[in-house]
Amino acid sequence: MLTTTRTTRVEWGDCDPAGIIFYVRYFEIFDVSTTMLLERALGMTKFEYLKAYDFLGHPLVETRARFLRPTRFGDEIAIETAVVSCGRSSFKVEHRLRRAGVLAVEGYETRVWVIRHPDDPARMKSQPLPADVVARLTQTPVPPS
Amino acid sequence: MLTTTRTTRVEWGDCDPAGIIFYVRYFEIFDVSTTMLLERALGMTKFEYLKAYDFLGHPLVETRARFLRPTRFGDEIAIETAVVSCGRSSFKVEHRLRRAGVLAVEGYETRVWVIRHPDDPARMKSQPLPADVVARLTQTPVPPS
Amino acid sequence: MLTTTRTTRVEWGDCDPAGIIFYVRYFEIFDVSTTMLLERALGMTKFEYLKAYDFLGHPLVETRARFLRPTRFGDEIAIETAVVSCGRSSFKVEHRLRRAGVLAVEGYETRVWVIRHPDDPARMKSQPLPADVVARLTQTPVPPS
Amino acid sequence: MLTTTRTTRVEWGDCDPAGIIFYVRYFEIFDVSTTMLLERALGMTKFEYLKAYDFLGHPLVETRARFLRPTRFGDEIAIETAVVSCGRSSFKVEHRLRRAGVLAVEGYETRVWVIRHPDDPARMKSQPLPADVVARLTQTPVPPS
Repeated sequence: MLTTTRTTRVEWGDCDPAGIIFYVRYFEIFDVSTTMLLERALGMTKFEYLKAYDFLGHPLVETRARFLRPTRFGDEIAIETAVVSCGRSSFKVEHRLRRAGVLAVEGYETRVWVIRHPDDPARMKSQPLPADVVARLTQTPVPPS
Repeated sequence: MLTTTRTTRVEWGDCDPAGIIFYVRYFEIFDVSTTMLLERALGMTKFEYLKAYDFLGHPLVETRARFLRPTRFGDEIAIETAVVSCGRSSFKVEHRLRRAGVLAVEGYETRVWVIRHPDDPARMKSQPLPADVVARLTQTPVPPS
Repeated sequence: MLTTTRTTRVEWGDCDPAGIIFYVRYFEIFDVSTTMLLERALGMTKFEYLKAYDFLGHPLVETRARFLRPTRFGDEIAIETAVVSCGRSSFKVEHRLRRAGVLAVEGYETRVWVIRHPDDPARMKSQPLPADVVARLTQTPVPPS
Repeated sequence: MLTTTRTTRVEWGDCDPAGIIFYVRYFEIFDVSTTMLLERALGMTKFEYLKAYDFLGHPLVETRARFLRPTRFGDEIAIETAVVSCGRSSFKVEHRLRRAGVLAVEGYETRVWVIRHPDDPARMKSQPLPADVVARLTQTPVPPS
């Protein structure tokens, strides 16, 4: 399965009066990591792949996170993000966030592939993942189109 | 168990280019609701109860959320928040977020009661919940102090 | 000129390790207030008025803020928002944010009325404000349509 | 005067339903840049320099920004940040944010050096900048201590 790692830094504005990261910021960090995973898989930016595959995005239907150790402003963190499984219209992603090599947070996401609802542009509708997207996320041969 | 409900509104700046709320904002909404639950339980603002009980906060050790229906800017939402269980040094909270009476998001949190680490002010240390806090969260008689 | 006032509360997650509000949050607060001002002026939610007037939004071209006194989590704040002037394709808004009646922050904004660029959907283009919007913002008689 | 440049990327969660960056995010970007400027000047992380100089931070008393061109998710941006002037207890910083070499946003900040109020730990008090900090920010010789 496809795996990517990126590094970033916890900033002052991410932290709360206890001096540690406000946990909500981890989900912002994870969302960026999932975007980068898809960009790596598809060889395009998100702006480009939304157009190329003509869809609205890959919102979450479920997420879970475990916070093992706090991080604080100035901490350099590494986030390892991997595809865990790929269904018909959904896929699962896992994040492991480490500070100084030590696991600090684990995150799990289930996301769906959605398009604008044909009957109502204000609604969304899930859709099967394109076969070549599944192939790229699971690192199996891309089917002929 | 103690339960509170509050209402708020999804705003333009909470939403992403798909036109729906960026899911990370739900965790900000849940954090405010948990604060209000504790404020209601203890009859003080968070600023006051951190002082009164001389602790650093109640950070999360785990959270989970299910996103059933999207919400978008202008949507009035109601968040019902309840204590689910109360352990020695942790407690669990559940959130049900509804739009127009229909369940849109469910959130679950496990939080710990932490103090500044006696040996290192940059670290935290979990601590048993005060007996009267447990009593107020579980709505059982408050023990004599 | 049209003026509205709303109240809200500074929350834990809005504050930084110094224990005061992270100044960036004031701009989120101001953006909500400007939305409410327009909703009041036009008698519709932003979701509705973007559709009714078929435009993309009213992004800022300039803003300025003065921070006179800090606020912190638990503080109830009142934000008074007023239209200051209305040009052909832009309008100016002022915010006064008070805690316990005392002025804490002043904000100024210049916004433009934009539509999707006819030649490139990824770009925007400013546009004259509709005459009835100007009338409602400046509280002068709404012209016959 | 000291100048630093860093690059970052506008992300999906930074953007609003118009598809462009929600302007509030620029202030988060600027705050990180000012932190990096001070870290560069002082040769320490913010966590370290708050301790080393025993102060609470450098909050803003005023800010101003001009938004010349929008940016959107996936855009690589470069932020050039410079000290403009240094007073007794305040200093001014300018940011120029460019996309593909073209100026998109200009930001201006006046910040003060604050300590915890000696009479009330919940309040802050401005304080003259240490002489060596002034020297490092203005790139003049550091005075002997």
